[in-house]
Amino acid sequence: MKNEHGGNISEISRRYGIDEDKIIDFSASINPLGCPPGVRKTIVKEVDSVLNYPDDDSFDLISVLSEYHGVDRDNILVGNGSTEFIYWIPIVFKPRKALIVTPAFSEYEMGLRIAGSEISYFQAESDFSVSIDRLCSRMREKFDIFYLCNPANPTGILTPKDELCRVIAYAQEANILAVIDEAFIDFVEDESLKREIFRFPNLIVLRSMTKFFGIPGLRIGYVMAGASCIAQIRENKPPWTVSSLGQRAAAKALFAGDYIKDTRKYVATEREFLRNALDEIPGFKTYESAANFVFVFMDSRIGLNSTEIRDRLAKEGILVRDCSTFHGLGNRYLRIAVKRREQNIIIIEKMKEILKN
Amino acid sequence: MKNEHGGNISEISRRYGIDEDKIIDFSASINPLGCPPGVRKTIVKEVDSVLNYPDDDSFDLISVLSEYHGVDRDNILVGNGSTEFIYWIPIVFKPRKALIVTPAFSEYEMGLRIAGSEISYFQAESDFSVSIDRLCSRMREKFDIFYLCNPANPTGILTPKDELCRVIAYAQEANILAVIDEAFIDFVEDESLKREIFRFPNLIVLRSMTKFFGIPGLRIGYVMAGASCIAQIRENKPPWTVSSLGQRAAAKALFAGDYIKDTRKYVATEREFLRNALDEIPGFKTYESAANFVFVFMDSRIGLNSTEIRDRLAKEGILVRDCSTFHGLGNRYLRIAVKRREQNIIIIEKMKEILKN
Repeated sequence: MKNEHGGNISEISRRYGIDEDKIIDFSASINPLGCPPGVRKTIVKEVDSVLNYPDDDSFDLISVLSEYHGVDRDNILVGNGSTEFIYWIPIVFKPRKALIVTPAFSEYEMGLRIAGSEISYFQAESDFSVSIDRLCSRMREKFDIFYLCNPANPTGILTPKDELCRVIAYAQEANILAVIDEAFIDFVEDESLKREIFRFPNLIVLRSMTKFFGIPGLRIGYVMAGASCIAQIRENKPPWTVSSLGQRAAAKALFAGDYIKDTRKYVATEREFLRNALDEIPGFKTYESAANFVFVFMDSRIGLNSTEIRDRLAKEGILVRDCSTFHGLGNRYLRIAVKRREQNIIIIEKMKEILKN
Repeated sequence: MKNEHGGNISEISRRYGIDEDKIIDFSASINPLGCPPGVRKTIVKEVDSVLNYPDDDSFDLISVLSEYHGVDRDNILVGNGSTEFIYWIPIVFKPRKALIVTPAFSEYEMGLRIAGSEISYFQAESDFSVSIDRLCSRMREKFDIFYLCNPANPTGILTPKDELCRVIAYAQEANILAVIDEAFIDFVEDESLKREIFRFPNLIVLRSMTKFFGIPGLRIGYVMAGASCIAQIRENKPPWTVSSLGQRAAAKALFAGDYIKDTRKYVATEREFLRNALDEIPGFKTYESAANFVFVFMDSRIGLNSTEIRDRLAKEGILVRDCSTFHGLGNRYLRIAVKRREQNIIIIEKMKEILKN
């Protein structure tokens, strides 16, 4: 069975007969400011690029990424969303035993299963922080690969950089690949491990342009890692997976300096607004988040479980992420994206309405 | 090592310092009339679709494809070019032993290798026709899957539908999957095996919108097969591989009735023009082709091999497909796309110039 995810506006529109335009999507965590200025214009200007095969080397986009991150061209590989790499890393490196720090994006498991890996889980603490000491001890267990998302999805919790380096060093000694998914790190870019790829040949950093840059429809993700690791993935994965328009638009997006600053500021402000408003609902408790979403726990005072709340809101055209499909989480957790103020107000109102009835 | 392919305009532009606009690409076989009318407008109009995740079900595009081909929705799956399926079919079905009818697109081999399949080859006859009797006999050898491209790439030769059905029936009895790549069948749509998927549960038909519909940059391919086969691929491959703009533009493209008729007529006329002109060059011999390219053999009167000719033309900004990288072909074959009359005249002139020096 396919995993459940957020962001399936078209499907919800078909199921409940609601116009896609009328749906407010808090289930996928996409930049509330939309995509960077210049992205739409680039697509319109470059529309003729659909007439040729995309550049399989994504040469221009990699040049821009290389400058943006201060990392060599050889250390970057662009793909069809970071999901392409989540599936191809297990196929290419054939890990026998894998460890996933949970709760986590369910596609890690899916990719590993198809490659035939044996999967173990490392549960975060009860407050959802990751105990690095405990994780370091697990590195003795002869895993071939481990996955950790930072900031974590769906909890939003950030594990400090030096703590992560500690476990990656342990992993390196034990010959374990470390896949660190930084799909949401752009909100706290200084915390990225991107420069650590020079110290750790066993480190693979996954990045996405879906969330922060607000272009999920274009499917742009990339990995940063040591040059030989990058070469090994490149030589084995399918060619031409990144569209011509996607390459051009993504390159343009990275030049949007003000948008980048504005996004960080706007999301920080609205995240606090949303957390405060949610915390005021009796029975709701939110968690500190470094990403553009808020993770919510609902105690026994809430008569509905997370799936029921999701379905009630969906009928009203409001989508939230029911976290019951994340490994190890029960049906008392929601993930709610930070959107624009007027939208954040609407979800709070609708949520209160639903809980009253 | 990555396979060599045509269509790498960006790379050639960088290597020889020629503007991309100045390059005439006969190495990828893309519709000389460009993309259908309405495709560019659709992209411009639907530019905001990049702000959301693509519909992972490609619901609207599959609806249009279903009507276009007269095949149920459950029998179609859309992907990131047919290449996505060339890689995922071996991963999903895990064939131990595979047979490839050659010469053939090198990605079949690549996809099979990564999945760990053992590969055998079935060589076409010396005139490049496929002996179905001989192929039927090979079906006794306990293969798990076989690949055949029709019309064949790079030869352009069409194997008649009833002949193919004969071998697929043999394969079915022996429990062998038959992957028929119809990347170029749109030029002779009546010859498609698409309706045979109801008779043969072991048949997988690969289709592409890259060549006939002229949208290689959007990455749209699909498979048609029995519903349970489609479901098995869908449940195992990565989600969201088809961009929002790609889905919308491709759906629009399929409504271009006049363009479809005009393309078939134009390509047939220009293919004859190109064949005649090439055949007039002493030492050149072309083959009958059902696709939008011409396959050329060069005898010993030609002092240059196919790689040398490709490189000489590339320096002039003209790209042709050197066929020496196709399994079983030596370095005396070229594949030349059918382009617009004025471009076809240019390649003939340039070719003559190069052969004179």
